[in-house]
This record gives sequence, structure tokens and C-alpha cells, in this order.
Amino acid sequence: MTAGPITREERALRASRAFEHLPQPLDALVLFDDQYILYYAGFAFFPTERPVALVITREGERTLFVPRLEREHAQQTGEAEQVVDYPEFPGRPHPMQHLGDLLARLGLASAAIGVDHDGYPSVMGYDGPALSTQLGNARIVRVSRALDHQMALKSPAELELIRESARWGAYAHRLLQDATHAGANEHEVEAHATREATAAMTAALGPSYRGQNRWISGATALYRGQIGPNSALPHAMTTGATFQTGDVLVTGAGAAVWGYISELERTMFVGEASAEQQRYFQHMLNLQDIAFEALKPGKTCASVDEAVRAYFGEHQLNAHWRHHVGHSLGQRIHESPFLDIGDERILEPGMVLSVEPGLYVPGLGGFRHSDTILITETGMELLTDYPRDLESLTLPAQVHA
Amino acid sequence: MTAGPITREERALRASRAFEHLPQPLDALVLFDDQYILYYAGFAFFPTERPVALVITREGERTLFVPRLEREHAQQTGEAEQVVDYPEFPGRPHPMQHLGDLLARLGLASAAIGVDHDGYPSVMGYDGPALSTQLGNARIVRVSRALDHQMALKSPAELELIRESARWGAYAHRLLQDATHAGANEHEVEAHATREATAAMTAALGPSYRGQNRWISGATALYRGQIGPNSALPHAMTTGATFQTGDVLVTGAGAAVWGYISELERTMFVGEASAEQQRYFQHMLNLQDIAFEALKPGKTCASVDEAVRAYFGEHQLNAHWRHHVGHSLGQRIHESPFLDIGDERILEPGMVLSVEPGLYVPGLGGFRHSDTILITETGMELLTDYPRDLESLTLPAQVHA
Repeated sequence: MTAGPITREERALRASRAFEHLPQPLDALVLFDDQYILYYAGFAFFPTERPVALVITREGERTLFVPRLEREHAQQTGEAEQVVDYPEFPGRPHPMQHLGDLLARLGLASAAIGVDHDGYPSVMGYDGPALSTQLGNARIVRVSRALDHQMALKSPAELELIRESARWGAYAHRLLQDATHAGANEHEVEAHATREATAAMTAALGPSYRGQNRWISGATALYRGQIGPNSALPHAMTTGATFQTGDVLVTGAGAAVWGYISELERTMFVGEASAEQQRYFQHMLNLQDIAFEALKPGKTCASVDEAVRAYFGEHQLNAHWRHHVGHSLGQRIHESPFLDIGDERILEPGMVLSVEPGLYVPGLGGFRHSDTILITETGMELLTDYPRDLESLTLPAQVHA
Repeated sequence: MTAGPITREERALRASRAFEHLPQPLDALVLFDDQYILYYAGFAFFPTERPVALVITREGERTLFVPRLEREHAQQTGEAEQVVDYPEFPGRPHPMQHLGDLLARLGLASAAIGVDHDGYPSVMGYDGPALSTQLGNARIVRVSRALDHQMALKSPAELELIRESARWGAYAHRLLQDATHAGANEHEVEAHATREATAAMTAALGPSYRGQNRWISGATALYRGQIGPNSALPHAMTTGATFQTGDVLVTGAGAAVWGYISELERTMFVGEASAEQQRYFQHMLNLQDIAFEALKPGKTCASVDEAVRAYFGEHQLNAHWRHHVGHSLGQRIHESPFLDIGDERILEPGMVLSVEPGLYVPGLGGFRHSDTILITETGMELLTDYPRDLESLTLPAQVHA
């Protein structure tokens, strides 16, 4: 059996159950974010300056509001009960006026409406009025946080897709690791791993397979510029580097499977790591172990970050701290809640998070593994499966002919 | 000579001149959009749920406000006079409180401040208060439209990068066209063209080359799913299709050169186009010619769309209309102003726009070329150079061994 798409029934159920997650009773939801639209109505599209919105009534009826150019696309691939289109942006009149008219026709002109944004956010030169200005007496309430709670609790079908993603991410990572050696070029190694892993995955998942993810396509493994001295920049940008003996490397791998992704990152060394590098590498493993230990249902997200930060403090490592422990993920590459001292939300079974405490030492290197985990009834389960020890991640210093 | 990055001097000048484009005098700008931050401060980064902001004072002093994990990255690669960091998102206290404190320290707590958004937009699970709630008596004014006007007027250095992009986009498109034949797979052909063109471009532009674009990396040519029946969907999503004789294809090609891109799209046929397809193809060429003719400085953007729409009406083609004529571009893949009946902005020398009126006939195919043009003192100049006639874009029906 290969992983298939989320069923129409599951998406429809999400739409009607969304209201159970809200902190107050509302009459309808109006959502502009493409990721909510995919989640609740199965419509994957390329967001531009032309607003797209999904209206969900309390009865679970979904109306997709799209520009004319997306009408057939939304009808053929989306799962909303109704598709309504407007001509164009900026157009005459403006799309927000069309949307106000649609909401009035749906009997929502004076309703209590939950939104992700009060109007379409500025994307690629879009500008326009707030949605609230288009509605006489409606009450507009921001509800992203409540919807994110629903998205964070993954269903069995979602978990199956994330597991499938993790398998192909690990395969892509293996190809990346095996192709990396001193003298090779970053882009060539990435292209090789990504091409081969994607070909293998699409062959295995069959012709109906779709990635449907905005951030990742196919199965991919990358360096994203974290090579040598730049490995000490947690979010470096690619420079097309050539690998050299002595480089510390921080990787990233994943795969898009019917909208869902996973995250796998490893710290590797070209040639033997120095004693100092080995010491930071071991601290990094210890930090990740502390986080794994702390990840339990019923605990706050903050408590995990606090446990990890305590180790930083105890070992005089605060100068090398750069970021919190991790983030939720699944459909978005980063989702909430976050494993951060400022996030008091409770860990619940079904949540999927990255665990990636890192240490960054300018001049010496960056040290970060990232694994994707599932919160279970009793603790956590690793969804990514890839060696994490120093020996397995040390590459030969030179290629022997 | 190879194309190099925008100079520090040019970016600094942009920052101080931004105020000349504003409709009212303001004391400072606070910008959250990564594309404004790249434009005014040269910092290319991966936007996440962690807010990044650029503060520009009336004197042109730039302060980059970044999460701790981006501090060294912003210092090393950005061009702001000052980098200020906050620990983390969500953190304790929230980043917007840190930003409010920074603005107070800069003497802006009661200032008139231009913003792109009143607060950080929702990206990947971010949530937080409006910026205006963090400032006692400041007056917050949205100024994206004014800044977009500045961005739309390309400098000689920007035009050189866009021209360079157009050359490599055309090369990638040639590779795509030559590799496409019945029986080939969409992804394989795209990967081949993109890989070869990127390798050639990076070799030509040398090791210092950076793409620095959020939408395109390297030189790329793609189908994005507009193959066969799906070519009639203006924004189809990829399905990993196998090309078949009789397919109508709509392509897309471009390249990222120091932050700048271009856009080249062509309609192609696998085997001879039918008489009906040839008729729509010719209409499409006529529509693009009408737009080219109408593109003159001093005219409104709307007038170009009106001229094209008139042809749709005269030839009973309205059922096949899906979108306006085009959009500005350069750093963003779509920028404003738009060639749209609702956009009354005036075309000015130095503006760069896509010209891409399209016809879409369900069951028969989509018909769209896109070229990138420059508004000159007297009319327009084509920046993309690629055959647009039927014969040049008809591929052999079969591959002969």
C-alpha cells in the first residue's frame, strides 16, 4: 500500500470541527492563508497578489472565492461545496468588494466572523482595504491560534504521510552524505541527491502521487549554505561552496507527500572533527537527549526549552545559543506551537515537532541535528530514522581513486 | 565583465530617497517584508515566524532588527548601519515589545511612521500584537504603494541584472524545448534544463555569484503542470506528466541574478497544432502585439489592459479570458503596478513588466506567451529574446531513433 491523499471526508470533517476549537461561538470563518485553504478545502495553489479566500459556515459549508483564472482549477482540484469567482486584481471593483458582496449573499453581513487576517495580506504588490470595512455590522475576530491548535493534532492519515515523508527524507540524506567529499560542489551534490531520491520516490508512490507542498517538492537533501565557517550561521544562504577537508556541515532533508513533510538535519564533518568540535558535537547530542526526555504529553512547550536552556547555562554555553528547541510541522514547514520558553501551550498526543537545539561557534562551526517526533500517550516517538553518532557522520577526508 | 551585485552606495541611496516617494512627510519607515529589507538593506534571508524588521530614519540611517539566530548573518551580509537583535519568538517578552523598545530608543515613540504592515504578518504560525499597540503616540501609516513606486523604477544597475537574467532564462528555455518530446517526463526535462543552464550560468558568472531571489534559484525552465488539457489552467500545479503527441504546453523560464529575475513563457505544441489551436495561437500573438503597441510612457496601466480586452470583445473571445495583461517584476516575481483595468498608475521609463495576455480553451489548451519589457522614453523594449512564432515552437511528434 502506498500513501494516498487525505480523503474528502476527512477534510470536510476538519471544516465542520474547526468551530469546536474556537474560544467563542462564531457564525463563519473567512481564511486567506493558502495553507488553511489547503487544509480545509484541499485546494493547492500558488498564492499571488490575487486574493483567494475560503468561507466556512457553521454548518461546514465551504465556499472558495477565487480570481477568474483559478475557477476551473479550484473546481477540478478543490473540495469546497461551491466556487465563486471575481474577475481580477486590482480589477474594477476591487476583489474585497466582491468578497463583501459574497458574504452578504451568504447572510454574513452582520455575523461574527473568525479570520486569519482582516483582509488579504500584502503578497507581491497586493494592496486593498481591510475586510471589516466591506461589511456593515460584522464582528471580526482573529482565530489563527485556535485553528493552529486543530492543525497541530495530526490524524492517523496525516501521520502516515509524515512517516512516508520521513522515509524518503532519510533516503535523500543518505544519497547526499554518500556523494559529499572534499572537492565536490554543494549544488551538484544537492542536485544529485534530490534528483535520485525524487525519482525513486515517484516510482514507488506511483503516477497519482502529488507533493502539494509549498516549501518542498519531491524528496530533497540540501546544505543551504551551512558549510565550513558558514555552518555557524543557523540560517545561512547558499553560496555554491566547494567542500574542503575540515568543513563542518549542517544538512537538511525532507520530502513532500500529499501536502505533508518531515524534517531531518545532521551535523557532519569532512575528515576527522577536531577535539574541540567533538566536544561541541557531544554537547549538542546531550541537548537533544534532554529535549527527547522532556517531551511528554501534559507538559508545556516552554518546559522543554527551559530544560535545554538549563544545560546551556550549567555548561557555560550561553554564548553559543541561537534559537529555541523546535517547532511543530506537518503541512507548513514551521507550525505552532513552538518549543520555546514563551510558549505555554500544552503538548498533546498527536502533535508532531522538530527537535533541534543547536550550538554555534563562530570560526569553528555549527552543531545541530534535527529530528521529527510524535507526541504519544506516554512520551514521544522518533519519526525520523538516521544515524546521529559522530562516527557515522564523519566523511573521508579525501577521495581515493 | 560579469553582472555584479547592487552596490552598497545604491542601496543606501534607495533608503534615503524612499522618503521622496511618500505622499506625506514621515519620520521613519518600519518594514517587515523580506523583499523591502533586501531592497533597502541588502539582507537576503529566509523569512520564518521570527519577525525581522528594518527601521529607516529620515536621515537614511538603517537599523536591522533580527532574532538572535540571524545576528551574525545580518552583520556579515546585510548593509544596515546597525543590527539589533532580540532573543527568540515567541520568547519572553514578545519580539513586538522588543521592537517597540527599539523604536523608543531611536526617539520614534511618538513619531509618524510609515509601515508595510502594522506588525509582523502571519508567517508559519507567528502571532502577535499590532506594532501600533507597542507605541504610545506614534502615527502609523501604510506606505507600501509609495515604496512600490520607487521599486518599480529600475536603475541602470538593476536593468543590467534583469538583462543578464533574461539571457540565462532564454538559454534554460532552449534546453527545455530541445529536451521535450513525446514519452519524456515533465520532471526529468525540467531537471535537465535547470541543471545544465544553472551550471553554465554559475560558470560564466564566477564564484562570487549569488541568486538572492526568493522565488527562483539558478537558471530554470519549467512547465508547472501546464501540459495537455491542464495547459488550459493558467496556474496549474505540476502532476509529473509524460508528454504526448497533441499536447499543448505552456512553459516558464527565468534566472536569479543578484536578486533580480525576468520572465519568459512560451506556448509550444508536441506535433502539429490543429487548425483550431493555430487560430487561438494567432489570436494570442495578436493580443500580445496589441499590448506591445500600447505600452508607452505617460499612458496608464489600465489603458493597455483595455486595448487588449477590446480585442477579446471584438473577436468573441471573452469566454477564453482569464487574467489581465501583466505585472511589474524585477526583485519580486510579481510587483506592482499591474497591467489591469483597475490600475490607473502611469507607465514611466524604467518600469519593467511582463506582457502575457492569454487565451484558455478547456479541452483544447492554453495559449500564452510572456515576455519581459522595459518602458523607454518613447515606447518599450523587449528584454527577453526568444522565438515566438508557431513553427519555432512546434516540436517533432515523435523521436526517431
